[in-house]
Amino acid sequence: MATDQIVAAVDIGGTKIAAGLVSREGRILAQSACPTLPEQGFEAAMQRTAALLQECVQQTGAQPAAVGIGCTGPVDPLSGVLGEVNLLPGWQGSNLSQALSVRLGLPAALENDADAAALAESAFGSGRGARSFLLVTVGTGIGVGTVLDGRLYRGTGGAHPEAGHMVIEPGGLPCTCGARGCWEAYACGPAMEAWFNQCRSGHSAEVGWDSRQICAAADAGDVNALAAVGREGSYLGLGLANLITCFCPDAVALAGGLMERFDLFETRIHTVIQANCRFVPLEQVRLLRAQLGSQAGLLGAAQTWWNAQA
Amino acid sequence: MATDQIVAAVDIGGTKIAAGLVSREGRILAQSACPTLPEQGFEAAMQRTAALLQECVQQTGAQPAAVGIGCTGPVDPLSGVLGEVNLLPGWQGSNLSQALSVRLGLPAALENDADAAALAESAFGSGRGARSFLLVTVGTGIGVGTVLDGRLYRGTGGAHPEAGHMVIEPGGLPCTCGARGCWEAYACGPAMEAWFNQCRSGHSAEVGWDSRQICAAADAGDVNALAAVGREGSYLGLGLANLITCFCPDAVALAGGLMERFDLFETRIHTVIQANCRFVPLEQVRLLRAQLGSQAGLLGAAQTWWNAQA
Repeated sequence: MATDQIVAAVDIGGTKIAAGLVSREGRILAQSACPTLPEQGFEAAMQRTAALLQECVQQTGAQPAAVGIGCTGPVDPLSGVLGEVNLLPGWQGSNLSQALSVRLGLPAALENDADAAALAESAFGSGRGARSFLLVTVGTGIGVGTVLDGRLYRGTGGAHPEAGHMVIEPGGLPCTCGARGCWEAYACGPAMEAWFNQCRSGHSAEVGWDSRQICAAADAGDVNALAAVGREGSYLGLGLANLITCFCPDAVALAGGLMERFDLFETRIHTVIQANCRFVPLEQVRLLRAQLGSQAGLLGAAQTWWNAQA
Repeated sequence: MATDQIVAAVDIGGTKIAAGLVSREGRILAQSACPTLPEQGFEAAMQRTAALLQECVQQTGAQPAAVGIGCTGPVDPLSGVLGEVNLLPGWQGSNLSQALSVRLGLPAALENDADAAALAESAFGSGRGARSFLLVTVGTGIGVGTVLDGRLYRGTGGAHPEAGHMVIEPGGLPCTCGARGCWEAYACGPAMEAWFNQCRSGHSAEVGWDSRQICAAADAGDVNALAAVGREGSYLGLGLANLITCFCPDAVALAGGLMERFDLFETRIHTVIQANCRFVPLEQVRLLRAQLGSQAGLLGAAQTWWNAQA
């Protein structure tokens, strides 16, 4: 295998850094991981990451041609500089691309992890064959990565669109972004938890159930849990309907913790989309679950490099 | 000027067909028009259109290399076939591209008129220099044309996205599309008129004021008219905020009858966008009025040809 077909992949989260070698066909040849320990500083973490990759190189004998990085955001993919990342306190302003590029002697490319995952699903997973593809990640927030004609869609100046923050209930619940009524404020995991725990009498939010517990209770027929799951499905469907209306994509895939229980939400999601997408050819839009699971991180990191070359 | 730099342009509306010759630089070299008279049938209208173009050719001596067509929708731009167009009863299923292509002995390309106008503004007007550009036409409905990297964005199977039908008030006012709470149902011209006329006591909708009258009354300080204009600005702003959140475009331009009084809505639109776009680099997004006015029809029609070649 030609060396330019192998990329060193680095996936940086708030608690864990994963690193590995990925082939152009989307095979992970070797991988390793270490804790992020953001409080020990950016330089120390870069040192640990470089060591992980050297370990992978020794293990396989494969020589990567570049490094691709996915990192919890916000990050500036064009400059490589970290923004004010909640999960990485003290790292703001550090240049991730440059730090790894210098340490490894390789050129580097960077995306936020949601966009990296969208690239991975588009190339190797649920979005294969789709000319226009959206990956919607539903977890503590809602992130949307958009891949058009195989390339990551960027907004003005390289900006990452934030479709999780489209307003679907004007003047509604306050959102972490400072606005009111955003999709995320109604349909992310914590939104379902907050609504359920407020509705249940005698329980304050602090001792409330988490999403997993609510889904399990819904499985067991708990009326309040079923209501919460129904509401979640409705609001997920509403935002998805708006995305379909605005993009008419070939495919939309759902990822993230809450979507492990897609089965619970699926019927309601479809009902709401059907009711609200009337002028677009809905029957041609595939709605499906993301396929790469825990591999999305490294495959996406690697794909950021190939995306940057396209 | 080389002949392949000149395109025959045809803009078909419900009442008027305009035809002309357009140069690659966006200059209209000659133009003419005739009534559509849809009730006299598709073939008769095509005959009249071909005659208009032959007149333009004789007048200028310029020889077009192709024909570009903009037509009130829905149309299938890939096949050239007309859908069920309200304004063109009896024409459904006719192949517009083929009819003109055969009569003129030239290859043809077709788009709906909203997309054609977006192409024209992108190439020659408000969207010049924008890598990502949205043209929002606010009239009897709300249409959005999306131009990315200079090419018209199409959805799955060539579909035209319908961002005017994103839901912004779940369960709200019924929309012409069959759903409830669409942006169009709250912010198109007739929506402002209906709200104003319902609020004014003693006037039924039938004898109500039109948008022009409401705007004039707002100019004169009429309290109800000012309220209607304020509401219109708010809902326009809300939909625009969602488009900016989802696309982060370099530029968004506003066209259509109601936007001739953009001055009345501008402050409110900006206030609502500022309040709702918190995580995207709003300061980099240009919001402006469309620039081509009545020339958009022919320039857009011509540009459909060049877009199809890109």
